[in-house]
Amino acid sequence: MDKIKVGIVGGTGYTGVELLRLLAIHPNVELAVITSRGEAGMSVAEMFPSLRGYVDLKFSDPVQVDLSVCDVVFFATPNGIAMQQTRELLAKNVRVIDLAADFRIKDVATWEKWYGMTHACPDLIEAAVYGLPEINREKIKSAKLVANPGCYPTAVQLGFMPLLEAGVIDPTYLIADAKSGVSGAGRKAEVHALLAEAGDNFKAYGVSGHRHLPEISQGLTLMAQESVGLTFTPHLLPMIRGIHATLYAKLTKVVDLQKLFEDRYNSETFVDVLPKGSHPETRSVRGSNQCRIAVHQPQGGNTVVILSVIDNLVKGAAGQAVQNMNIMFDLPESAGLNVVPLLP
Amino acid sequence: MDKIKVGIVGGTGYTGVELLRLLAIHPNVELAVITSRGEAGMSVAEMFPSLRGYVDLKFSDPVQVDLSVCDVVFFATPNGIAMQQTRELLAKNVRVIDLAADFRIKDVATWEKWYGMTHACPDLIEAAVYGLPEINREKIKSAKLVANPGCYPTAVQLGFMPLLEAGVIDPTYLIADAKSGVSGAGRKAEVHALLAEAGDNFKAYGVSGHRHLPEISQGLTLMAQESVGLTFTPHLLPMIRGIHATLYAKLTKVVDLQKLFEDRYNSETFVDVLPKGSHPETRSVRGSNQCRIAVHQPQGGNTVVILSVIDNLVKGAAGQAVQNMNIMFDLPESAGLNVVPLLP
Amino acid sequence: MDKIKVGIVGGTGYTGVELLRLLAIHPNVELAVITSRGEAGMSVAEMFPSLRGYVDLKFSDPVQVDLSVCDVVFFATPNGIAMQQTRELLAKNVRVIDLAADFRIKDVATWEKWYGMTHACPDLIEAAVYGLPEINREKIKSAKLVANPGCYPTAVQLGFMPLLEAGVIDPTYLIADAKSGVSGAGRKAEVHALLAEAGDNFKAYGVSGHRHLPEISQGLTLMAQESVGLTFTPHLLPMIRGIHATLYAKLTKVVDLQKLFEDRYNSETFVDVLPKGSHPETRSVRGSNQCRIAVHQPQGGNTVVILSVIDNLVKGAAGQAVQNMNIMFDLPESAGLNVVPLLP
Amino acid sequence: MDKIKVGIVGGTGYTGVELLRLLAIHPNVELAVITSRGEAGMSVAEMFPSLRGYVDLKFSDPVQVDLSVCDVVFFATPNGIAMQQTRELLAKNVRVIDLAADFRIKDVATWEKWYGMTHACPDLIEAAVYGLPEINREKIKSAKLVANPGCYPTAVQLGFMPLLEAGVIDPTYLIADAKSGVSGAGRKAEVHALLAEAGDNFKAYGVSGHRHLPEISQGLTLMAQESVGLTFTPHLLPMIRGIHATLYAKLTKVVDLQKLFEDRYNSETFVDVLPKGSHPETRSVRGSNQCRIAVHQPQGGNTVVILSVIDNLVKGAAGQAVQNMNIMFDLPESAGLNVVPLLP
Repeated sequence: MDKIKVGIVGGTGYTGVELLRLLAIHPNVELAVITSRGEAGMSVAEMFPSLRGYVDLKFSDPVQVDLSVCDVVFFATPNGIAMQQTRELLAKNVRVIDLAADFRIKDVATWEKWYGMTHACPDLIEAAVYGLPEINREKIKSAKLVANPGCYPTAVQLGFMPLLEAGVIDPTYLIADAKSGVSGAGRKAEVHALLAEAGDNFKAYGVSGHRHLPEISQGLTLMAQESVGLTFTPHLLPMIRGIHATLYAKLTKVVDLQKLFEDRYNSETFVDVLPKGSHPETRSVRGSNQCRIAVHQPQGGNTVVILSVIDNLVKGAAGQAVQNMNIMFDLPESAGLNVVPLLP
Repeated sequence: MDKIKVGIVGGTGYTGVELLRLLAIHPNVELAVITSRGEAGMSVAEMFPSLRGYVDLKFSDPVQVDLSVCDVVFFATPNGIAMQQTRELLAKNVRVIDLAADFRIKDVATWEKWYGMTHACPDLIEAAVYGLPEINREKIKSAKLVANPGCYPTAVQLGFMPLLEAGVIDPTYLIADAKSGVSGAGRKAEVHALLAEAGDNFKAYGVSGHRHLPEISQGLTLMAQESVGLTFTPHLLPMIRGIHATLYAKLTKVVDLQKLFEDRYNSETFVDVLPKGSHPETRSVRGSNQCRIAVHQPQGGNTVVILSVIDNLVKGAAGQAVQNMNIMFDLPESAGLNVVPLLP
Repeated sequence: MDKIKVGIVGGTGYTGVELLRLLAIHPNVELAVITSRGEAGMSVAEMFPSLRGYVDLKFSDPVQVDLSVCDVVFFATPNGIAMQQTRELLAKNVRVIDLAADFRIKDVATWEKWYGMTHACPDLIEAAVYGLPEINREKIKSAKLVANPGCYPTAVQLGFMPLLEAGVIDPTYLIADAKSGVSGAGRKAEVHALLAEAGDNFKAYGVSGHRHLPEISQGLTLMAQESVGLTFTPHLLPMIRGIHATLYAKLTKVVDLQKLFEDRYNSETFVDVLPKGSHPETRSVRGSNQCRIAVHQPQGGNTVVILSVIDNLVKGAAGQAVQNMNIMFDLPESAGLNVVPLLP
Repeated sequence: MDKIKVGIVGGTGYTGVELLRLLAIHPNVELAVITSRGEAGMSVAEMFPSLRGYVDLKFSDPVQVDLSVCDVVFFATPNGIAMQQTRELLAKNVRVIDLAADFRIKDVATWEKWYGMTHACPDLIEAAVYGLPEINREKIKSAKLVANPGCYPTAVQLGFMPLLEAGVIDPTYLIADAKSGVSGAGRKAEVHALLAEAGDNFKAYGVSGHRHLPEISQGLTLMAQESVGLTFTPHLLPMIRGIHATLYAKLTKVVDLQKLFEDRYNSETFVDVLPKGSHPETRSVRGSNQCRIAVHQPQGGNTVVILSVIDNLVKGAAGQAVQNMNIMFDLPESAGLNVVPLLP
């Protein structure tokens, strides 16, 4: 088979360099184009010396480059960019995977409220497939446009999914206490993300409302087949990679929780249900596309506690995007994702 | 006034060195004795060079030393040590502050179950005062024996206290998602606390049951005047100091939450209610005896989210112990605790 | 005695907040004014919650404020600001301590080359006293204008001083391999200082030339009474505070190194020579004005290795500035600096 | 070709788990046996959840297991273990790669002095090949017993090699100021390596003498063809992986340093000479077998400064061991080592 020609728009952020790390040694991919407004002409490996020997490309000017030579284009850009270019690419038969939020939320008004801008192509939202393979694999196979899920939404949805689908918890009182490493904030020069600010420190943020709330609620509602009540509290961890979601719900039925989770994810390559009593560590998935989950019922009471960890840049972003690409192009789902986590 | 003669039993752990840091410059204290089984004869400042120029003592052998010269003795020892020596000290008119758990739990059976040993002096438990000044100040004044609260219990109880006392939340479904820096595990050689294990990593632990659960439940029950249902999930943060408790409860009454908290802690030196909408950072209390709290009501719903931070070694251990000593000896409550947090 | 009225220009950076931490509880100081161009009108404690309860000031607009009410003004500003305002302040009998580099280098041409700007008041440079108390204490006493040393220069000069003064090393081949925590780069939004960039990472920088090189060379030349040859290599540590300078020189005479260092610093409050064979840790001075030094002669050869640690924000900046103020105003040199390092 | 049957003795340390990470997806390897005295019977993936899905082995009891089924055995054990078992394995035609120090030093007396034990098989030392492929590739091809270099020695030798081979520096005054992440100390429960001790902290250690000194000196002497004078100062970095060696030497000849290094390493897959003026970061090699080097001549003077970074667990241990195995078994040298560094 010919290799898939891949384009990346916005390759200077963390999701961009992570896409490069994975795609550089993907057996079925040819890196064709990578763009950057600010760094056009610069060698990719000059900006990211970790890629020396693996990536020979230079950044191209997004205005001048012709992305129609690509089979698929990943948008590793800020919110609001992909929606400007997607229609044209689709028209040229180029498939699009957006790692930002432009196509994640089906209700345009909700999206516009949380993201503070007018959507450029609301008609394309319906056609976009939400790229969480564990629930949407079939739709992703034939998708032309995939909305890659957010990092928190991936960890939280995979944690609640078996319970909501089975209807064994009260969907009106769900709590997601989530913690993320700082790479989730991107490679932007901001004071609060400095090592001297975020290091040796811990805090919550966005408690009154975070953009991932409507995305998660939408997903959980679909699973529950009824509207859900979710409190979502994100926190900033003094580390680079990793999300740990601690989820709380009230059990409404007697159920073998361990079996429920194992059965649900039995055939999933990238969701690993740990043995009973386990506490997954974020480092156990560092650099890999794995989500590891443990389920607890403290003191045998009616509260279920789910612990769900991912690498925010892999299963929470670039890795899941590659997984989606693999599904879209009928490749083995784990092609290029056969990466053993880096521990310690 | 004569200075208070202070003894410290077990000075080689983190709560020990932290007591030394605070007491070394306390204007009303004379450090009289510090003991260590393993390091008798060694200079304290040789083990902790940070104390060079401040502490001239050597570690004494606990078997040989006469602690009855002290006005007060702090036990900075593992659980189960203080209960062996307290009766004798009290008999000699030496007051005791135990930083471990020996006297924290009133129900002996519960204590023995969670701590896995037989209590050496169950008759003293009732006389012991639980040293959380914000609720027990009057009793502490005349106490001979103070059980200094645990680190998690301090952060969690101070966070729930205004709500439970006011009766505005459902006490049967409380969630405490708590995160602690690794110094909370003490200065013990254990693989899981190595930098190469705990660094750049995050995980929950003890989800099925942690020793601080009965301590917290006991305190919350007293506040609520009825039994409570608590889910407590501790997590290990990749940093040295600091606890962040994120607390969740269901509101049962309409109430001005900000005012409720501000009124409750208005006269408390060491509890600081932040302005509405704030997110306290652990570093904002680093090295100080402060607890900082913010209260949120996300989306105006019926879930209240409280964010409570302390330095686990100060307000969560040594600082609160000094605060208790100040109260017991009728000193200004903040004597020796006038430490500006270290930021960055 | 009346309290000293202190002004701080540029209080939003790390040296600014560190001055506030120290001065807020200095027994002889009244914080009168603090300025910030960007944050005028904002409460200091809103920006730095660690100062809640200690500092009530608001940031003032530097254009509108009258600094002549102050006895002394600290400039915690970028390079090039203090030189604009110093003449006017001195004329009004306000003493000035510049924590930036404007008055550190006596040779104007050298300064202008390394700092890339024209000096605004070259005539004041000669009158400025280089504020390293361990060598210039007498001059500082009567100084109107003090150039507070850089962080690297403090650690390196204190390490080489006894050897160069005694003339026991070859001054033509000195090596200073220095490592600094990221707070040394200031509280500026820059990508390279993000936790996700600088965390879990280590690198040298400025190997071909760093601004502290001429400052250090000037100081070492004065000590040696002859010109010196220095190779200075700064590195960025994945931590917040602390400088560790590892210094190498060739011994030219047989000498008792330990005695030489102890004799030289015997009467210095803030330089602590550790026992033979020691390895000072940066955390042993965290938050304090101490410099701790150890001297080694590996394998008994002719190479001397000096290990010198300071907290870059204290002895390397704000603490040394307060030490200089104390000397200038005839206060006990350690007034307000009686801070036990925070360990762990 | 049949897969190579690999045994690992001592698989519970960091070099063990790193060997597993690399070998688990090595296309030419079959993991046959892994032993552990303490954990026999335990599943490898239970101890290291990062290996779930990749490694199905259980730890075997070293006393009961038959290692003669292996083509090659890696010793990832403490010093002094491999020398007990090597003779028997070689007799059974099993090749041995020792990641510890047993066969690194040719002079038995020197080895016994620094390692404090009697060597069990001094006659095998001469036959052992020092496994630094960049200088010993030919000998490694036919070696039955490879002494895998230490982590510091790898970084330091690769940095000095081009200069010493070319005879352009003074070999009598070499300085290696080296810094290592804490994983270099191994997965042992020791207080000094706790996150609460080693985190946010930096210090030198072993300045008076470190076991890697004789190993490095031996290697440099071979390169220089004359005896060398080396000062080696190791430091402990507050991070997990990575070594940065900053090397200093006096130039004795005029030479194009950049060209010298590029020519020397032109054909080496795992040594990457960065462009002039670069500062390699440890994270640019995180998880990979790469060594990245930059060479500087500050101020155009006669001091050369070399910056050399490796991942101590990969090129400094397990990766180099796999590279040696590849050479010994006539596989492509980079087989199984095609890992893009993890950044951020």
